[in-house]
Amino acid sequence: MSLLVVGSLALDTIETPFGKEEYTLGGSATFITTAASYFTDNIRLVGVVGYDFPKKEIDFLRSKKIDISGLEISKDEKTFHWHGKYDFDLNTRETITTDLNAFEHFNPVISEKFKNSDYVCLGNIHPGLQKKVIEQIDKPKLIMIDTMNFWIDGTPDELKETLTLVDLIVINDSEARDLSKEFNLVSAAKKIMELGPRIIIIKKGEHGALLFTENTIFSAPAFPLEQVFDPTGAGDTFAGGFMGWISKTENLSDDNLKLAVIYGSTMASLAVEKFSLDGIRDLDKKTIMNRFDEFIKLTHFETVSI
Amino acid sequence: MSLLVVGSLALDTIETPFGKEEYTLGGSATFITTAASYFTDNIRLVGVVGYDFPKKEIDFLRSKKIDISGLEISKDEKTFHWHGKYDFDLNTRETITTDLNAFEHFNPVISEKFKNSDYVCLGNIHPGLQKKVIEQIDKPKLIMIDTMNFWIDGTPDELKETLTLVDLIVINDSEARDLSKEFNLVSAAKKIMELGPRIIIIKKGEHGALLFTENTIFSAPAFPLEQVFDPTGAGDTFAGGFMGWISKTENLSDDNLKLAVIYGSTMASLAVEKFSLDGIRDLDKKTIMNRFDEFIKLTHFETVSI
Repeated sequence: MSLLVVGSLALDTIETPFGKEEYTLGGSATFITTAASYFTDNIRLVGVVGYDFPKKEIDFLRSKKIDISGLEISKDEKTFHWHGKYDFDLNTRETITTDLNAFEHFNPVISEKFKNSDYVCLGNIHPGLQKKVIEQIDKPKLIMIDTMNFWIDGTPDELKETLTLVDLIVINDSEARDLSKEFNLVSAAKKIMELGPRIIIIKKGEHGALLFTENTIFSAPAFPLEQVFDPTGAGDTFAGGFMGWISKTENLSDDNLKLAVIYGSTMASLAVEKFSLDGIRDLDKKTIMNRFDEFIKLTHFETVSI
Repeated sequence: MSLLVVGSLALDTIETPFGKEEYTLGGSATFITTAASYFTDNIRLVGVVGYDFPKKEIDFLRSKKIDISGLEISKDEKTFHWHGKYDFDLNTRETITTDLNAFEHFNPVISEKFKNSDYVCLGNIHPGLQKKVIEQIDKPKLIMIDTMNFWIDGTPDELKETLTLVDLIVINDSEARDLSKEFNLVSAAKKIMELGPRIIIIKKGEHGALLFTENTIFSAPAFPLEQVFDPTGAGDTFAGGFMGWISKTENLSDDNLKLAVIYGSTMASLAVEKFSLDGIRDLDKKTIMNRFDEFIKLTHFETVSI
């Protein structure tokens, strides 16, 4: 079924202990749509890029069968550029520069043909814009949003208004603590649920992710990789794998949400093995299913009683 | 089969945000044997306490069918006393006092009837003492040790000698990084395996535990509790549940080691819900299996391909 993705497209400069790449394709909507494209063909992208956005990357998005009719190309401004540098352990990063460029005035308008989207995935943008998108969609089956400390602390009222309209929020552990004012993550999830979303996913980086619904808590590990190359986009890739699986299966049961978390984790683990988007640019089903099978081995145990 | 446990017995004073208890039963051997007692009846304890050790706690250990003929009671000295205070988030703790007392001169001698022990679990004591115990046992089937930064940094050569003699080491993530000089935990486990143990368990506190064998990596979550009351002894309780299950089943396959990790995690999650040893003093099989079943729900997912 149809999946609408709204978020940033960027050209990133990334420095990790393993090297540096300049003006490489990035942005939340890029990672989300690319990851989701391995699960469903009906993906609609809404975003903005500048006049410098490479033609080959437009072709790349098309090659993933992503509908880019909602992609605005600014004639006056450059593409959003983010320059980040990771610490030796890849756990902390410093932003060197953020040039919003065309993204500064991003004002997502949903075209008539996108208004009937079944599933909606809103990358980490201003909560007011997220709300504006949501109000343009006819009865979607599931709305997921991402957010960050910048909005939690900077625009708390607008974020809380948006939260009343969404089904699912994906945030990391420090953001969950910040938003809920609870240190314990189970308590944090409960508090956030009271704000609106009935499904909460808390990402814990190298420690995996927790899924909370009314009746379920599910814990998925991150894949224990010996070499993480570049964590950029891991969270968005997770969201894309998750929403791709949900759009493909159209099943919102707790059991299928768990499976979506595993597919999200599978895609994220493949993403961080290479620079930027390279880890998920050109995958086949066999590679994805091999990693999925590794997740089974990593987590499953026999049930034998004492 | 028989499980030999060597470690400390203590009277702890513990302060958490939820209260304070003074001179309550603690020590690694106490938590290990108590946790293991729910899986097997053939447990042998070697340790030392002082003349002030309460008679009722001797009776408690006996009530768990633990063979305490190897428990020395000093006539001249008091019992090891540790006083610790936890921070508001329970993730960091400060040691207020450590009175080693009788434990200072602990010199474990293994009696003739304990020398044939099948499984050996050595709590966090001087690696030289651990080695001395190992040399007294006839062909055990599995030797597990715990250790800590104090020995990793303070007696590295003796620890490395001991590591060549053991099958399994249980350490936490910061200790694994310290011992291996590797930040990545997969790399750390590989390095530690080269030092001797063929099985490595890395505990990650609220993030669970990782099991590494030659052919397997297994990730077990910690149980997502809303209220952790007192983390004291969680690691030892994990070790006790693990070794209790191994002693009961006598199966060292990767699949059974995974199950042992889950039973260890099950016991640890019950331990931290109450003060000190109270969480595991008086359990029944039903309570343990209910928590075990929660671990299944927490981790299992259906296998459906893309």
